Amino acid sequence: MSVIALLTDFGTSDPHVGIMKGVIAGIAPAVPIVDITHGVPPQSVLVAALHLDSAWRYFPNGTVFVVVVDPGVGTARRPVVATVQGRHFVGPDNGVFSLLPNPTFRRIDADWGLPNPSNTFHGRDVFSPVAARLARGAAVDAVGPVIRDPVRIAVPEPEGALGQVLYIDHYGNAITNLPGDWRGCVHVFGRVVPVKRTYAEVPRGGVVALTGSTGRLEIAVRDGSAAASLGLEPGSHVVYDEADP
Amino acid sequence: MSVIALLTDFGTSDPHVGIMKGVIAGIAPAVPIVDITHGVPPQSVLVAALHLDSAWRYFPNGTVFVVVVDPGVGTARRPVVATVQGRHFVGPDNGVFSLLPNPTFRRIDADWGLPNPSNTFHGRDVFSPVAARLARGAAVDAVGPVIRDPVRIAVPEPEGALGQVLYIDHYGNAITNLPGDWRGCVHVFGRVVPVKRTYAEVPRGGVVALTGSTGRLEIAVRDGSAAASLGLEPGSHVVYDEADP
Amino acid sequence: MSVIALLTDFGTSDPHVGIMKGVIAGIAPAVPIVDITHGVPPQSVLVAALHLDSAWRYFPNGTVFVVVVDPGVGTARRPVVATVQGRHFVGPDNGVFSLLPNPTFRRIDADWGLPNPSNTFHGRDVFSPVAARLARGAAVDAVGPVIRDPVRIAVPEPEGALGQVLYIDHYGNAITNLPGDWRGCVHVFGRVVPVKRTYAEVPRGGVVALTGSTGRLEIAVRDGSAAASLGLEPGSHVVYDEADP
Repeated sequence: MSVIALLTDFGTSDPHVGIMKGVIAGIAPAVPIVDITHGVPPQSVLVAALHLDSAWRYFPNGTVFVVVVDPGVGTARRPVVATVQGRHFVGPDNGVFSLLPNPTFRRIDADWGLPNPSNTFHGRDVFSPVAARLARGAAVDAVGPVIRDPVRIAVPEPEGALGQVLYIDHYGNAITNLPGDWRGCVHVFGRVVPVKRTYAEVPRGGVVALTGSTGRLEIAVRDGSAAASLGLEPGSHVVYDEADP
Repeated sequence: MSVIALLTDFGTSDPHVGIMKGVIAGIAPAVPIVDITHGVPPQSVLVAALHLDSAWRYFPNGTVFVVVVDPGVGTARRPVVATVQGRHFVGPDNGVFSLLPNPTFRRIDADWGLPNPSNTFHGRDVFSPVAARLARGAAVDAVGPVIRDPVRIAVPEPEGALGQVLYIDHYGNAITNLPGDWRGCVHVFGRVVPVKRTYAEVPRGGVVALTGSTGRLEIAVRDGSAAASLGLEPGSHVVYDEADP
Repeated sequence: MSVIALLTDFGTSDPHVGIMKGVIAGIAPAVPIVDITHGVPPQSVLVAALHLDSAWRYFPNGTVFVVVVDPGVGTARRPVVATVQGRHFVGPDNGVFSLLPNPTFRRIDADWGLPNPSNTFHGRDVFSPVAARLARGAAVDAVGPVIRDPVRIAVPEPEGALGQVLYIDHYGNAITNLPGDWRGCVHVFGRVVPVKRTYAEVPRGGVVALTGSTGRLEIAVRDGSAAASLGLEPGSHVVYDEADP
């Protein structure tokens, strides 16, 4: 059985996500719907791509993902379906699928959306209906032609030992672009931070670097917020050092 | 098959919404439950009515909605079921169903709730059990007698070209009471704002007015927050102008 | 049929909760998943225990709860399953199950988790897979041996008439450790607050004490926030008084 998994920047204070679920329930009533998150920072295609990269492998074969971070809604940007390893990913062609491994992209040409689509809410009018039909068993080939030139964005790469913060998570941990398999320490705003295996290896309030659940190096404060304590934000520099702290 | 759709001002940091779902799962275990939103501003019956108006048509026939924005919980305000076009709406009789088109209202007299209902949480003790029974197939006539005098609230109407902001959404867009099918421009705090079709028709950081997904005119800042940039809040004035900006 | 109910401090802005649901969907695709809340204050084992206490009785027999507030993740703290009245509770052995009535605890020894578990996300790697197998019908005896020495935490007890605020809810109501079945009044920062049955028994903006849905005494401001108006926070003192206000 399929699952439909939603990832957007819609937040949850408005009815938008619920409306998408209503549309899906009308087309594919037996398909479970799961929220990945709707808390992507508004218009942040990069963070959506990173969260999708963290999440999709944990969903079963046959899952249909709807990813809507879509500042270009209503313009000529293409609606697409990306297909990887038995999973489909439906959303705008703006780079949000850049971290998927070798997807096949198809432009959505099929007339599967709601009648009279709006210019501001394709999550409701286009992407949800397409995802619901795919989850119900429609053939992905019927969506539209394969395209070879999808828009791609890149995650900022570390420059040698110089990395940067990609985003701040709910706990105030700073997730960096440095790989997690490191020993030694990192330098954060002149402070030497030891690399450990678990949060609990430093005292309460202590700063620690460790391999987070994404596989990336993250900076944390035990039982506190690294972002608030250290002033870290996306783009802040973090430098690796092989020396034992 | 039925779906149960929830719309409240409970937020999601407390267990209240989860408790309602537990009650529903105990009575109607096979019925999918969908959140519309729980982020209605506390006690705002008007915003709940507006969000319900935006959402309900997108849910399939047979959906049972539970709408709980209920500052009068525990008082003599009546619990009701409103019925429109094959869908039922369960909640307090305080105006939250005012924007539904010609509903039939019934007072909830049936003893379908939990034993010993509290004075503070009828979402759990009354509305969820009633909705679960309706979703499982109970006849709505058995709920109680039709009532002809439901409480009604009105959305503030524009006075000619003078409109106002109804609420601010997750992106900081200001949703107004002006109709969306307009050309020309609007005046916001002395600033002339062009009316466009899509957010992307102005430069980043530019102010734009457009027809939002609700069909109402909204004021937005491309890739930014109109509320934060312009100081808009519910009640702020917005004036239509037929002149080209 | 089983339900799986989730209670964490993960928040909803990161993909963590969605990833747990993906893992569950892969193992137990037909089992509905319900969120109790993911808004427990970070690392607050006490608030998680209180919310679980408020919620679990409302879920049907057979429900499997996954409770992850886990500052000791990756350390030697034990993963456990607690069993009470036909319901299973999966999570870390850190006191989060202290308010359950006479549970049987089992240490999770079975190799039911994902391969290569991380040191930072046992919600994904251990607790979700174990819960999914239990929900699908695996025998709880197969999880591991019964343990007699689970970690316990205590809710602060009132000292006579002197109580304290345990937590602040979404509305800004202050939930105290005082029992709800009281008459008379309470003293809050020198102010005399009447005990009533419903919020609506005081004028708008008035301060009121009443028995909340948890059965505990809570301090509220009608159509407002008691926490913001009175400066209440966890630990603030509240004193009972039998006198009529």
